[in-house]
Amino acid sequence: MTARDTEAEADARARACLTAVTPPGDLWLGAMLAEHGAARVWAELVAGAAPPHVTGEEEPGPDARARLRRRWDRWSAGAARVDPDALLADSAEAGVRFVAPGDPEWPGRLEQLDLPGGRRSHGLWVRGRGDLRNLCLRSVAVVGARAATSYGEHVASEMAYGLAERAVVVVSGGAYGIDGAAHRAANAVGSTVVVLACGLDVDYPRGHAGLFAAVARTGVLVSERPVGVAPRAPDFLIRNRLIAALTPGTVVVEAGRRSGALNTASHAAELNRVLMAVPGPVTSAMSVGCHLLLRDWQAGCVTCADDVVAQVAPLDERSPSSGPLRVRADLDRDSARVLEAVSSVGRGPAVIADSSGLPLDAAMRILGLLAAAGLVERCATGWRRPR
Amino acid sequence: MTARDTEAEADARARACLTAVTPPGDLWLGAMLAEHGAARVWAELVAGAAPPHVTGEEEPGPDARARLRRRWDRWSAGAARVDPDALLADSAEAGVRFVAPGDPEWPGRLEQLDLPGGRRSHGLWVRGRGDLRNLCLRSVAVVGARAATSYGEHVASEMAYGLAERAVVVVSGGAYGIDGAAHRAANAVGSTVVVLACGLDVDYPRGHAGLFAAVARTGVLVSERPVGVAPRAPDFLIRNRLIAALTPGTVVVEAGRRSGALNTASHAAELNRVLMAVPGPVTSAMSVGCHLLLRDWQAGCVTCADDVVAQVAPLDERSPSSGPLRVRADLDRDSARVLEAVSSVGRGPAVIADSSGLPLDAAMRILGLLAAAGLVERCATGWRRPR
Repeated sequence: MTARDTEAEADARARACLTAVTPPGDLWLGAMLAEHGAARVWAELVAGAAPPHVTGEEEPGPDARARLRRRWDRWSAGAARVDPDALLADSAEAGVRFVAPGDPEWPGRLEQLDLPGGRRSHGLWVRGRGDLRNLCLRSVAVVGARAATSYGEHVASEMAYGLAERAVVVVSGGAYGIDGAAHRAANAVGSTVVVLACGLDVDYPRGHAGLFAAVARTGVLVSERPVGVAPRAPDFLIRNRLIAALTPGTVVVEAGRRSGALNTASHAAELNRVLMAVPGPVTSAMSVGCHLLLRDWQAGCVTCADDVVAQVAPLDERSPSSGPLRVRADLDRDSARVLEAVSSVGRGPAVIADSSGLPLDAAMRILGLLAAAGLVERCATGWRRPR
Repeated sequence: MTARDTEAEADARARACLTAVTPPGDLWLGAMLAEHGAARVWAELVAGAAPPHVTGEEEPGPDARARLRRRWDRWSAGAARVDPDALLADSAEAGVRFVAPGDPEWPGRLEQLDLPGGRRSHGLWVRGRGDLRNLCLRSVAVVGARAATSYGEHVASEMAYGLAERAVVVVSGGAYGIDGAAHRAANAVGSTVVVLACGLDVDYPRGHAGLFAAVARTGVLVSERPVGVAPRAPDFLIRNRLIAALTPGTVVVEAGRRSGALNTASHAAELNRVLMAVPGPVTSAMSVGCHLLLRDWQAGCVTCADDVVAQVAPLDERSPSSGPLRVRADLDRDSARVLEAVSSVGRGPAVIADSSGLPLDAAMRILGLLAAAGLVERCATGWRRPR
């Protein structure tokens, strides 16, 4: 293990501990981590030291300074009670791993939250056999009201099923109503990503425990909260930015005038994601939110999985409905080299490994991931680019 | 009666006769009328002469020339059988008057059909107590499928009722389904305009005879076909351009994938009118056309009368929902002068007449029309501009 590995491990461990005492997306903490590193911030918190100075910000007035200090002291008091080994052991026990920025499983798309003003994620708890980064490469968020109508649940199911059939991963919030219908249908064909506002062993809502267990078999559950933490109201709103950020596009299936799904929609718009809405009867209160998005030209109108794929796929890749969804930019260097080595006529894995300069086993693992993302496909002579 | 009046009367009479033997919107006839005047063209047809030459066009090849000649000869044979006095007497008997371009009742908005390539209207038959020009000033077309669902008819009724309450005249095609529901609801509160593809005494569809009679009491029925003419399939398509042209905006309430309402919609788009669509269940075949218009960003999403008024009203007049709908450009010179003389504080009619340079009775008549169009309103001290 190199010094750099050790440093990354210490950083991840500190970030995991921080999730136990700090709120997700805290802007001040984000700036502090960027400047001083998680290991140092955590150490200062545990030691009960003063908060490290964040440069480049305006000097806060005395009131603001006092508020920040109270926040820091609250975190510090919490940090004193965190046992890092126990936290990681409890998580592992519950089948939950921690993924920090920089980790191979960290979704590249979250980097957009690091832009100024963005409520960056300090780390993600992940449960399930899927690979979060790979699942998100070719994904769409399907969200909507908990108090969905049977129409809404029907449309969410059909759309999620169709997306899964086209190898698009459905990301949603695991709630009753639209979210549950979307996860359930997607999970029946492919994989799905559940983004929760509570610890991944909490199974909230309780009635979805079975669904979450089924999702974990091929997909993943994600949360910024550590195991054992019950959801609180504000967590749902900050969780929604994660749903929007993980995917290139968000579909609102049903939403009342003040639905939380509209909060996800506004995050998607802020992050320059493709925002889509499903129309419904104008007589239905649960379609009012969707129609507002359409009326004000904020969302594109989608009625089926094909519409969604057409809107999310970049212009130059529109024609094949199974084509990749804005994924190239997210590829790490090795994957990009392997993809480069695949041509439109089939080539064997040994040839591909050779021309990409990677060992055969690494190339084969990457080919599998690229295939899951729809970027390459198997053929009689090996692997090729899809038409 | 001046020479000019006589000339206009002869032109109108010739145009009325032409509607009996030529198809609405014929481009060649339009060019001929613009160059030679209706009276001369009609005289040549009756005399069995050769077609008058249309300048500015490429000389047609021998095939095209032969086709045009056959068309002309067909018209000429028809013209020989037309008795102008009987035509006008039969029309008057059926309560139908003829309105020619230049007539005070001619809707200003139709001038857009006179642009190059536009299938201009050669004249309109009108039945009913309303004034076609005034009714169209502040109007919206509400169209949709004949095979409408009960959802579609419900929405069409609600929307038309709401538009009529806001003093917006509903224009539609008088068919079963969406058209009928819209006319019926609008007529219950205000006035409506029925645009037919057949003679105005024909009552097609037969089941709407009662509705048409009710419409004629305050609104109007319009057609480019003279009395006694039964509708033929191509007439409906050419009629649709008239619906789109008469109004500043068209709402499609329900439309299947190949609905005639989409034909009206494409006319509206070509004429730069505001095109709107009502969403519906994505599971409904009768909403597919609407969703295609929304998906392809061709139409704005509207769910109620307020949405429609907001989309049709020009940007600078959006706030008052009873405000005028793009009418200023349609005003004749006298009306514009009267409007000019009205200020935001109330002024008496004598003052307004004086400052507009018109006789009092003319000014008062025009003030009534401007009020009907929502451009002026009564107040304690006379008339003023609405807030």
